[in-house]
Amino acid sequence: MIPSIEWTNDDEVKMIDQTLLPFELKFLIFKDYRDVANSIKVMNIRGAPAIGVAAAMSMALATLEYQDLPKKEFLKKMEKAAQVIKGTRPTASNLFWAVNRIMKIIVPAPDNPKEISDLVIEEAKIMAQEDINVNKSMGKYGAEVIDDGDVVLTHCNAGSLATVQYGTALAPIRAAIEQGKKVSVIADETRPRLQGARLTAYELKYDSIPVKVISDTSSGLLMRLGKINKVIVGTDRVTSDAVFNKIGTYLVALAAKDNGIPFYVAAPTSTLSLEETEDDVTIEQRDGKEVSDVLGKLRIVPDGVECLNYAFDVTPFRLVTGIITEDGIFTPEELLKNYKKNK
Amino acid sequence: MIPSIEWTNDDEVKMIDQTLLPFELKFLIFKDYRDVANSIKVMNIRGAPAIGVAAAMSMALATLEYQDLPKKEFLKKMEKAAQVIKGTRPTASNLFWAVNRIMKIIVPAPDNPKEISDLVIEEAKIMAQEDINVNKSMGKYGAEVIDDGDVVLTHCNAGSLATVQYGTALAPIRAAIEQGKKVSVIADETRPRLQGARLTAYELKYDSIPVKVISDTSSGLLMRLGKINKVIVGTDRVTSDAVFNKIGTYLVALAAKDNGIPFYVAAPTSTLSLEETEDDVTIEQRDGKEVSDVLGKLRIVPDGVECLNYAFDVTPFRLVTGIITEDGIFTPEELLKNYKKNK
Repeated sequence: MIPSIEWTNDDEVKMIDQTLLPFELKFLIFKDYRDVANSIKVMNIRGAPAIGVAAAMSMALATLEYQDLPKKEFLKKMEKAAQVIKGTRPTASNLFWAVNRIMKIIVPAPDNPKEISDLVIEEAKIMAQEDINVNKSMGKYGAEVIDDGDVVLTHCNAGSLATVQYGTALAPIRAAIEQGKKVSVIADETRPRLQGARLTAYELKYDSIPVKVISDTSSGLLMRLGKINKVIVGTDRVTSDAVFNKIGTYLVALAAKDNGIPFYVAAPTSTLSLEETEDDVTIEQRDGKEVSDVLGKLRIVPDGVECLNYAFDVTPFRLVTGIITEDGIFTPEELLKNYKKNK
Repeated sequence: MIPSIEWTNDDEVKMIDQTLLPFELKFLIFKDYRDVANSIKVMNIRGAPAIGVAAAMSMALATLEYQDLPKKEFLKKMEKAAQVIKGTRPTASNLFWAVNRIMKIIVPAPDNPKEISDLVIEEAKIMAQEDINVNKSMGKYGAEVIDDGDVVLTHCNAGSLATVQYGTALAPIRAAIEQGKKVSVIADETRPRLQGARLTAYELKYDSIPVKVISDTSSGLLMRLGKINKVIVGTDRVTSDAVFNKIGTYLVALAAKDNGIPFYVAAPTSTLSLEETEDDVTIEQRDGKEVSDVLGKLRIVPDGVECLNYAFDVTPFRLVTGIITEDGIFTPEELLKNYKKNK
């Protein structure tokens, strides 16, 4: 797969415009951190890990813009940039994680903003590489729970396109196939923005992994008919009691539970926010037009009727079989024990 | 509301073309029973009760076509017509119920097909009026479980447009509002064919009943957030163990159960098929293009990727709080006791 985002040799940010997929593969190139922040907001790039790297690279562009200022003013500007970037998608844990990681470098750094900029650019590149490494590791662990012949349901896109490369929820599937197992995927179309129909179907087809698309209404019946063996989804944030992921995930988890089908969440540790509980999280509400006008192109609702559009939902831990991280697979209880200890 | 279907004074069948709603209100007028059968198949008309009446009226048109034949040949032709009509939508119980009801008139009738035709036309008209009466009765009983201030979720369209008039699942809401209760509706958009976004939103707005549309992925979160108090859906067939309804109903029922929200099914007794079990029912599979190409107008899936498209799903009785019929509201256990007795 092509990387969804990279830092170019000309100190620019290059990303796939995912709003045009699967029909056009177009790259966006940005020099201004505000444009990268906007690309997160309008979802040219999306997926928690990819958003994290985009945020870091956006911060890196900001350091280039302000590198000629004295350190004090530089710091002020960078704090402003951090606010702008954090304000783009309120539910994505990685966004805050990435911006904070960059700020932790900037604040105690030497007095020369030019040097700081070099450090930040280097860190953003490292974060991109780390993401790929983390995904490969999740793939290795996750592949252990995938059997030859499995049909795996996934919701939204937590694939290569949601990360720098390789994916989170799709990593175990990719790894299982690399091990020679026969695995096929059923992709929930994932309304309103159809990341499953557009992106998951695109990247799996691109890599010759068998995939079929269903409406979000269909997962329950297919499980009841025995046509799905496993569920793996990604996550935007894991609190101490629940998994936040694309709207619709909770319904899939309920159906999996009701049919005795294992429900796994692929969660790089950068998405863990275990000091929080469900009630601490603000769920992003987006424009109702994403519901009423499919992909901004086809109106499906009568004029004058309002649409509600929450971007994420909440899956309580009791519905989760296992959480796949780059360190291994854990039950929610094990996860809490292992990672709270490390704090 | 305008009737979704009627028998005209010129012995024609007149129906709203629901595939064009909510953007155009156009009427179709048919003289050939095959055209009415086709209108069921391509879903110009849909909804179990409306399909039943359309099937009866289609049979009535067939009697007009064959009324000059001797009774024996007339009967053969009518049996052929019955087959054609029954073959249009394999899951709809009302279809079989309606065709069989007409055949029960035809077979023992006098030898003059012209007289039979008069009887059948009269019966089709009676069935249309009965449908309205049944719906009003379901409304009266169903309104008892709706409280002032309720927000009621419904899936698909089991409203006036799914019946001749007044609706099944929407009947209790209409009746509660007529009683002066303040009730608002949240409509699942209901992919793939978007009957909720298009039809439920259209008819409720038409009648000034407050309605908001959500993607099918959102019902679980809204219930978890306490923004939905009741669920009422329609049904295409009730067996002795489960409710068959539009794909996605099962997921809504699971979410209602998980959040302690009452889940009601509005089921005119014509949809009861209690001598059957879940395993006896064939679930209609429709063209995957309904998923890949939204309303036949906007492609959302990469070329070459297959889509699965089951039209109905199965909600086991354990998830159902009550079944609203024209005779009253029953738990599934009470329903079985009452109606098996009557056989």
